[in-house]
Amino acid sequence: MDIYRNINELRSSVNAWKKQNLRIGFVPTMGFLHTGHLALIDAIKPKCDKLIVSIFVNPKQFGPGEDIERYPRNFERDQQSIEAHHADAIFYPAVEEMYPDDYYTYVQVEELGAVLCGRSRPTHFRGVTTVVTKLFMATKCDIAVFGQKDYQQALIIQQMIKDLNFDIEVMICPTLREEDGLAMSSRNSYLSEEERQRAVCLYRALKRAEDLYANGEKHAALLREEMKNEVLTVPEIRIDYLEVVDALTLQSIDIIERKTLLAGAIWLGKARLIDNIVIDVEPIDA
Amino acid sequence: MDIYRNINELRSSVNAWKKQNLRIGFVPTMGFLHTGHLALIDAIKPKCDKLIVSIFVNPKQFGPGEDIERYPRNFERDQQSIEAHHADAIFYPAVEEMYPDDYYTYVQVEELGAVLCGRSRPTHFRGVTTVVTKLFMATKCDIAVFGQKDYQQALIIQQMIKDLNFDIEVMICPTLREEDGLAMSSRNSYLSEEERQRAVCLYRALKRAEDLYANGEKHAALLREEMKNEVLTVPEIRIDYLEVVDALTLQSIDIIERKTLLAGAIWLGKARLIDNIVIDVEPIDA
Repeated sequence: MDIYRNINELRSSVNAWKKQNLRIGFVPTMGFLHTGHLALIDAIKPKCDKLIVSIFVNPKQFGPGEDIERYPRNFERDQQSIEAHHADAIFYPAVEEMYPDDYYTYVQVEELGAVLCGRSRPTHFRGVTTVVTKLFMATKCDIAVFGQKDYQQALIIQQMIKDLNFDIEVMICPTLREEDGLAMSSRNSYLSEEERQRAVCLYRALKRAEDLYANGEKHAALLREEMKNEVLTVPEIRIDYLEVVDALTLQSIDIIERKTLLAGAIWLGKARLIDNIVIDVEPIDA
Repeated sequence: MDIYRNINELRSSVNAWKKQNLRIGFVPTMGFLHTGHLALIDAIKPKCDKLIVSIFVNPKQFGPGEDIERYPRNFERDQQSIEAHHADAIFYPAVEEMYPDDYYTYVQVEELGAVLCGRSRPTHFRGVTTVVTKLFMATKCDIAVFGQKDYQQALIIQQMIKDLNFDIEVMICPTLREEDGLAMSSRNSYLSEEERQRAVCLYRALKRAEDLYANGEKHAALLREEMKNEVLTVPEIRIDYLEVVDALTLQSIDIIERKTLLAGAIWLGKARLIDNIVIDVEPIDA
């Protein structure tokens, strides 16, 4: 397995693969890999001839005062995991390689990036779409995989791919969870043992709303209220949002009639945790 | 020669060419081709195996009240010219093909797009970089050519290519001029015969500044003043800008010490005309 630290070296291998008409798969990560990341690698592996995993903690998607400095890193362990899951290459660039001093270009998806996580992290998705564009171009991938845990991110990237005419297939893989239901996340490493116990309240809240819908409740306001009540049973949680939105437009809804996203973000100690559940609704013809 | 009106059809040919490892060249245009465009086609033709010319009057690069409605068009004539210059394909999409109703994504180069033409056309270059990204992706070109007449545009596109890691080579071809020196432009068709006579004052002004520099004048303020005087000898001209800027950063300069751009934009009747001259300066080591 090769490790590339700069774009030109990566490109030289990638161009050789393209010349042989090999299909390139790509898994973008910020490193500190957990089982969820490895499931992405396993899912895409059979769909490509060459597989590249990137590890890059992208400063452009962190806002002022966010956790870029303490974001967890462990390259040696990541390298072993990636090799064990049979990727062909790791792209592991330095910040200066990706964003030299005279860097000026941004890719932005309007509307979808302004709601949910975009409300409290206004430059976050612009950073994501910018780095993902760069990584798509550097890897020349034909297929890329993203996790459903970052549902809004995945939706925005799919919109960008369609809008900018990238010829890239996207796979979305289900969220992997700990035994109690907590969504796997590198940021769970911020939690103390005691916080870790409380963290599952976000998933419990989403699950509560899903159950209510399954039992016939279609009023989004009531589901929001019940999610909030569920989270507030647990002490010292700050709610960023607990939302019921259209799963395609991410716009707030009143009544559940179409595919719907239950999504939440909470603060717990130093960790901001997100999670979501999609409610698939059979569309009713008017 | 093939004419493609939608991206999927173009992509299917392009992917077949890529499979054969053919090198794809690309000339983006807004149509109503003049000798300058055809010189771009001739220049890139020997550098590629397959050559695509696009014709698309891009609404995203026109501001409110600008000339998109009356922008000149003549597809049949363009088609004949392009065929005569041996391109392999024309990409001629409708607006709805490029920007469906649910279109949300923009590519923006900060700094370079805020000065010169960007001052009076604040969304112009965002529209250019967005459409050029889409066209680069739709054509999968390996090399593209731009004219020096749109110097700022060419600089911004080169910055975007570098920043976003597009693996695309750029050629910049010299501005072609009419006999009296007026830069060729599709917008010259807006000029009445009488306006056409006066239009050359922009080139005369740039030339006057270039001559002054050649004779030892290095103060940008004086060159600006002289360009303005030159243009103002002609009646009923509105000056948008007449500038002396660093040719790489486009920032205003006081003394000419490095590669410098003399650039201007004027209004004459219904036409906004631009032109520029580059002064190559041997860098002096401190």
